[in-house]
Amino acid sequence: MPRADPAEPTGAGPGRGRVTLVGGGPGDPGLITVAGLRALREADVVVTDRLAPQECLAEIPAHAEVIDVAKIPRGEQTSQETINQVLVDQARRGRHVVRFKGGDPYVFGRGGEEVIALTQAGIPVSVVPGVTSSIAAPELAGVPVTHRGLAQGFTVVSGHVAPGDPRSTVDWAALARTGTTLVVLMGVHTLRRICTRLLADGMAPTTPAATIADAGLASQRVVRATLDELPDAVDAAGIGSPAVTVIGAVAGGDLPGTGDLAARGLVR
Amino acid sequence: MPRADPAEPTGAGPGRGRVTLVGGGPGDPGLITVAGLRALREADVVVTDRLAPQECLAEIPAHAEVIDVAKIPRGEQTSQETINQVLVDQARRGRHVVRFKGGDPYVFGRGGEEVIALTQAGIPVSVVPGVTSSIAAPELAGVPVTHRGLAQGFTVVSGHVAPGDPRSTVDWAALARTGTTLVVLMGVHTLRRICTRLLADGMAPTTPAATIADAGLASQRVVRATLDELPDAVDAAGIGSPAVTVIGAVAGGDLPGTGDLAARGLVR
Repeated sequence: MPRADPAEPTGAGPGRGRVTLVGGGPGDPGLITVAGLRALREADVVVTDRLAPQECLAEIPAHAEVIDVAKIPRGEQTSQETINQVLVDQARRGRHVVRFKGGDPYVFGRGGEEVIALTQAGIPVSVVPGVTSSIAAPELAGVPVTHRGLAQGFTVVSGHVAPGDPRSTVDWAALARTGTTLVVLMGVHTLRRICTRLLADGMAPTTPAATIADAGLASQRVVRATLDELPDAVDAAGIGSPAVTVIGAVAGGDLPGTGDLAARGLVR
Repeated sequence: MPRADPAEPTGAGPGRGRVTLVGGGPGDPGLITVAGLRALREADVVVTDRLAPQECLAEIPAHAEVIDVAKIPRGEQTSQETINQVLVDQARRGRHVVRFKGGDPYVFGRGGEEVIALTQAGIPVSVVPGVTSSIAAPELAGVPVTHRGLAQGFTVVSGHVAPGDPRSTVDWAALARTGTTLVVLMGVHTLRRICTRLLADGMAPTTPAATIADAGLASQRVVRATLDELPDAVDAAGIGSPAVTVIGAVAGGDLPGTGDLAARGLVR
């Protein structure tokens, strides 16, 4: 129940500044939406971070300013409150601010928090959805998150908060039994704890799984293993963050992955 | 474990025909990806259906043929096997075939089945991910599927197969307890059975929920209610298929929805 207390969400303050949150997709610049690209091309200032597809920044107007919040003094630890304030301050200067993110703004992007802060400040805000890597990364590796007769649904969770952590809001024992494909984002450093927990909760050790890094790029890497062997396989391959893990029967197939979109002539 | 038995996925037969599956997004033509639009603009033939964003078809080349599989004799009941055969036949004529779908090809789009059929026929196939309405419809209505402290994940299920149906592959009792936001697609006609089942499995009657139709279009409609009252509210509003239902704490907030992207000047 996010609270926004919308205080005149239209009209705003001086110069009619506004903010558009844009989801940039999983990495390849061809996977941004047409509306997202248009917003970038019409921006006065773009507030970005390291997860947004950097090549898209070539599309912004010459006059536009780029603020990389990972490079604000104090580095990648820039607090969400600081980012919110940057957005509010820029919009109050009458600018069209694009908050440019990887994936989709509302899938672990803290987009909701930014929208609440902006609305509380009386600044008009819109959100342009993006392609989420939670679906696209498995897809580009040849794993459909749903498949008739195999998976009637899928669950996406953040591995940022590990099983057993008191901050966790998910019931891993229930997750192990839903019968849906399980996708874990931000879970490379907690992968072993997650797999151990799912096995303890009754998921079969032979459940197929895959971990995908750099989905859709020339550098795409895919590690496939059964659930019990996945952590060792990912360690052995040297896969680091960010990566996407998909667990379930759908990961056991051999559909051809699309992989590198550029090499396929699909983008650029 | 989808089986493809890839028989020479490159090189194909006469004239180097190929197929690209393109996810068209939730409806607004601005929510297709740049790569998806490019594929449409380079297509020789586009195989589409009523769920794909129809306005995008204005972008295809003058010479390109459009095959609406909902209009093949026998109507919307066109079997998946028939659609697969159309794709194979068209590619074997040496054409670049775009299979144009709503949302994302691997989220209840039966894209995996098409990729298997094409690969078995030796036809090269690529998949361009799309924006899924399972995330974008709530998002455009002001509901983030994840929100820090409220929802560490989300689950998307098809309501096409109702709880209790022997074909169901999901454990609704587990779903009711995961602690993730629950999104139901294709669930308008089974909504009452789904809500009744979730309540019986212990989900609180006061759990916030929303059903969204025509997300991102001028005709967007949003019905908000608690879980126990949602089926009556949706009936009263006269919402029909397709619509997206989102259930969980995130649906109880009051973030401003972006709604009609065109009215916001974000597309067109």
